[in-house]
Amino acid sequence: MNALGRHLLLELKNCKSGVLNDLGFLREALLAAAKESGATVMGESFHSFNPQGVSGVVIIAESHMSIHTWPEYDYAAVDVFTCGKSVQPEKAVEVMIERLGAKNHSIIEVQRGILLNSPVCSR
Amino acid sequence: MNALGRHLLLELKNCKSGVLNDLGFLREALLAAAKESGATVMGESFHSFNPQGVSGVVIIAESHMSIHTWPEYDYAAVDVFTCGKSVQPEKAVEVMIERLGAKNHSIIEVQRGILLNSPVCSR
Repeated sequence: MNALGRHLLLELKNCKSGVLNDLGFLREALLAAAKESGATVMGESFHSFNPQGVSGVVIIAESHMSIHTWPEYDYAAVDVFTCGKSVQPEKAVEVMIERLGAKNHSIIEVQRGILLNSPVCSR
Repeated sequence: MNALGRHLLLELKNCKSGVLNDLGFLREALLAAAKESGATVMGESFHSFNPQGVSGVVIIAESHMSIHTWPEYDYAAVDVFTCGKSVQPEKAVEVMIERLGAKNHSIIEVQRGILLNSPVCSR
């Protein structure tokens, strides 16, 4: 069915050590993921937690990409939410898996905005 | 199963007119939702689109809350992603449904970070 957006929920497990608590590295990775997918970055917000963990969101013209990390479990939750046909969210997923060195991952795709009048995302 | 986070994906349909293009209103709503759920706000990023639509994300200590609106379809996609037992994400969902006057809504809950070693979110 037609939907306004595609929302990819990415579970990254067994990530390589040292990166999940590195805000600068994770910010660069998420911005690279956005760029690689063809998205347009509009804003961002990142935060480090004590004693560990990083959260970050990049607002893109096509919706958002986010990451939350739990270094103590070598785990990161990544979201890639896009609308429109000009972006390739799979590319963002590939970048994140590769940069974080995730030995295991899973992806769920949720269609957002399934409306009965065949919506089109014009962004 | 034990999971690090709860991710509520909220579809808000037939929202009341006038609010989905109002960045100030939506920012207030999302911040109120965060507060009502007991979350701690760490940062935010909101953006208005031309000719219409608003995207916004609030980073909370417990993960994030986001909104993307399509006024042309009276539709908004809201995410409430939390970890830990100190927050009540259902409260945030209630606030968003009520403030946006959504006549129809649906909710999907996705468990994030289901790991085999019974993880505990300490945030």
